[in-house]
Amino acid sequence: MKSFLFPVAVLFSLAGKAQPVAQFVRQNKAQLLDEYVRFLSIPNVSADTPNIRRNTAFIREMMERRGIRVQLLQGTTPGVTPAVFGEIKTPGAARTLGFYAHYDGQPVNPKQWHEGLAPFEPVVLTAPLESGGKIVGPYKAGEPVDDSYRISGRGSADDKAGVMVILNAYDALVKTGAKLSANIRFLFEGEEEVGSIHLDEIFRRHKDLLTADAWIVVDGPKHITGRKTLSFGVRGDVNMALTVYGARRPLHSGNYGNWAPNPALRLVQLLASLKDENGNVLVKDFYADVTPLSPREKQALAQLPNSDSLLKKELGLKDPEMPGRSLAEGLMVPTLNINGIQSANVGAQASNVIPAKAEAVLDLRLVKGNDWRRQVQKVVDHIKSRGFTVIDHEPTDEERAASAKLVKITMDHGYNAQRTSMDLPIARAVQEAVQSTTNDPLVLVPSAGGSLPLYLFEDVLQSKVMVLSIANYDNNQHAENENVRIGFLWEGIETVAAVMRMK
Amino acid sequence: MKSFLFPVAVLFSLAGKAQPVAQFVRQNKAQLLDEYVRFLSIPNVSADTPNIRRNTAFIREMMERRGIRVQLLQGTTPGVTPAVFGEIKTPGAARTLGFYAHYDGQPVNPKQWHEGLAPFEPVVLTAPLESGGKIVGPYKAGEPVDDSYRISGRGSADDKAGVMVILNAYDALVKTGAKLSANIRFLFEGEEEVGSIHLDEIFRRHKDLLTADAWIVVDGPKHITGRKTLSFGVRGDVNMALTVYGARRPLHSGNYGNWAPNPALRLVQLLASLKDENGNVLVKDFYADVTPLSPREKQALAQLPNSDSLLKKELGLKDPEMPGRSLAEGLMVPTLNINGIQSANVGAQASNVIPAKAEAVLDLRLVKGNDWRRQVQKVVDHIKSRGFTVIDHEPTDEERAASAKLVKITMDHGYNAQRTSMDLPIARAVQEAVQSTTNDPLVLVPSAGGSLPLYLFEDVLQSKVMVLSIANYDNNQHAENENVRIGFLWEGIETVAAVMRMK
Repeated sequence: MKSFLFPVAVLFSLAGKAQPVAQFVRQNKAQLLDEYVRFLSIPNVSADTPNIRRNTAFIREMMERRGIRVQLLQGTTPGVTPAVFGEIKTPGAARTLGFYAHYDGQPVNPKQWHEGLAPFEPVVLTAPLESGGKIVGPYKAGEPVDDSYRISGRGSADDKAGVMVILNAYDALVKTGAKLSANIRFLFEGEEEVGSIHLDEIFRRHKDLLTADAWIVVDGPKHITGRKTLSFGVRGDVNMALTVYGARRPLHSGNYGNWAPNPALRLVQLLASLKDENGNVLVKDFYADVTPLSPREKQALAQLPNSDSLLKKELGLKDPEMPGRSLAEGLMVPTLNINGIQSANVGAQASNVIPAKAEAVLDLRLVKGNDWRRQVQKVVDHIKSRGFTVIDHEPTDEERAASAKLVKITMDHGYNAQRTSMDLPIARAVQEAVQSTTNDPLVLVPSAGGSLPLYLFEDVLQSKVMVLSIANYDNNQHAENENVRIGFLWEGIETVAAVMRMK
Repeated sequence: MKSFLFPVAVLFSLAGKAQPVAQFVRQNKAQLLDEYVRFLSIPNVSADTPNIRRNTAFIREMMERRGIRVQLLQGTTPGVTPAVFGEIKTPGAARTLGFYAHYDGQPVNPKQWHEGLAPFEPVVLTAPLESGGKIVGPYKAGEPVDDSYRISGRGSADDKAGVMVILNAYDALVKTGAKLSANIRFLFEGEEEVGSIHLDEIFRRHKDLLTADAWIVVDGPKHITGRKTLSFGVRGDVNMALTVYGARRPLHSGNYGNWAPNPALRLVQLLASLKDENGNVLVKDFYADVTPLSPREKQALAQLPNSDSLLKKELGLKDPEMPGRSLAEGLMVPTLNINGIQSANVGAQASNVIPAKAEAVLDLRLVKGNDWRRQVQKVVDHIKSRGFTVIDHEPTDEERAASAKLVKITMDHGYNAQRTSMDLPIARAVQEAVQSTTNDPLVLVPSAGGSLPLYLFEDVLQSKVMVLSIANYDNNQHAENENVRIGFLWEGIETVAAVMRMK
């Protein structure tokens, strides 16, 4: 497949173009890492507005240092976190390319991070700690750091890495005197991890600024093989939070055990009814809306390198959730996942109580054909069919008296999946530009497993959109001990630079 | 029943005896409360050794102030929390009576306490906050406080209240010049909430000091009616902690959802298999060993006031766990309760992950006939029958590769249930002494729902044992916002004093 698509002669000539950028990166590693570590030191949990604004300001400075004039874009809702926008106009440009990343991160629970790691105190690791890596210590500018080493911190991979490689790719092109052929637009969002709740408004309000032939979203992990990874779609996503109620207050398990209902038991019975032991969701019509894959998408899926055995070993798993289904196949199907459960306490804080409530958060990933409101409704209907009374608030005395099985369900605003046709000329041009930076065949993914609000690029901006993933697959994205492989930042800069000047 | 057992004339004559003690209490409320608040201000979580020792020292001072010579009793294991012992020898005493309470408390999670309350900063409440009570503020010595008000704090009800009423009952008898007829022994344990793990050693080593005709354990809540409550047995107890494992690290729910098994799902499926929707434990032979109640025990059970409707209303519950079974009946049967569950996070800290592990703590209450090791083994066998590989440590790489369903199970040292025959003369004498302090019929419980290591009194000390409960039923024992009704402390002092000088 590789030699058929990219004859060796072409590869060499394309690789030649990347050389100045690669050289720029080699010569500026210390400076680039130093700035990146300062960026990661600013807390970026989406809901932490004061610190999020410090990130906004930091990105503005990064852009201005690189000669990019900055505009902060907001929608119509006042006071929300702005997206950071910039534009480079290229005289006689044949097309406009947009580059998107997000600078906010998932919530953190510092207690769950490894000893010596803190979400916003980046340190250098020799490898992920879960794989036997060691903590080297804080990055010291100028000290050489192996490309295989990691930088820890919330956002190090997801997705300050995107901001970092996009801005440095542009800078490298400018500093090495490369000639651009397209207008370049930059957009860095600060609310992605809370569901991009105002991106719609921003797109509608600033449509003129934001329209492009294609937007390249730099986010997500590469394939486990480390091969460069380009995705043409993403799953949609919506979260549901469930709270099941028992007695008004926690009860002594001896004095009330066998009489007062236990909400933790009720919750586990409910959750257990959602999915069978083989990973099939048991909610009625859960899989009914799925749009089948096109022949080209099926072909791409079949050609994906299967690293499931490697991955199972690395993750310490004997079997996948569904016997016989590969990871790649599973990502083309909607999910129902338990993100977290809590009722009273475990470990040293456990005590002999019947808890007063039990909570769970569910995550529904959606594929093309699903609608997030419809998918949520199917789950709500299932819960009702199990005898629960569904409310959206703490139960009143009357509700408690009327129903033995009360569940509060709240949800975020969700969004749907998106897929760009792999047959489009611009899709093929991006693919070729990325391929020009490597001798290894690309990993082409019809739809990534993760979620981004890509439907908005298509629906509101009428722009095509693709996802370029540069982070290591073992980055602990969304969890404790998040980290990025340093060498993949350098590679990412080269890759994005190649796309910025693609034919 | 009341007039049959206690003719009015007898009641009056007996009630007369209690008068000087009641008067002593009325005249010394401020001083008694002031000392109690200082006692509650010393943190008493069993595992917090430095603070537990401060409690030991405080009790020693309380006893010495009352003229009781103190011995700290330890078993054969060095360095563990001592029990505080004291003895009053009465010349010509016909019998020896022991009075037991415990001074350690259950773990606390200060974040779960109501705003304005902290586990070790006692304040006065007008009523439980869950029932619309208000915070009055810290107790100020000398200010009058209504008997219906509460003092908050870990241990306020369970079981520093026991220490408080025992020592003040003795003090009141001495100060009012009452003549004792029995030797009195005092024992205050500091490890009850961690399963009285060294009480066996202490009893065996100091058997001579501790033998008595009967031990009166002052612990637990009164019946919801507020009537004086005497129990002739307790359930046994053992805890099991379960941890189910997924991948070695938390995974992005988009990138791995539908492929990586979710340990939270595995755990809820396992827990749901333990009990049906009607509260029946589905573990094989779970109820097989239960010793049936004697005719007198059955009669006492039938005569217990049924306050289930009142309790349901107060707790905000529509139905009990098992349709048609009363609270009193449920307490005569072994339990399987979920004390707590946790996997990753919920609420603001939730993120879109497949958790790496999921944990639950179970609490098995045992009745006469059950053996705690046998009961645990039945649950372990059930878990194995569901395809789980049971380990007692973090899984090794080899164990992960060999089993798709790994569960770590650890457990405390448990203990069995105990029941004293209600037909014994000493059992009837205690009952009459308690009855002498009230015109309301007593609540006589063949076996309380809670657990205490009462079997040790019988097995090691060859002493009879009964439980006198003085705390309000709505004390939030073992949970956040624990509190004691102040008037029940005064009543408790009078009741214990009556038992100390019983015929």
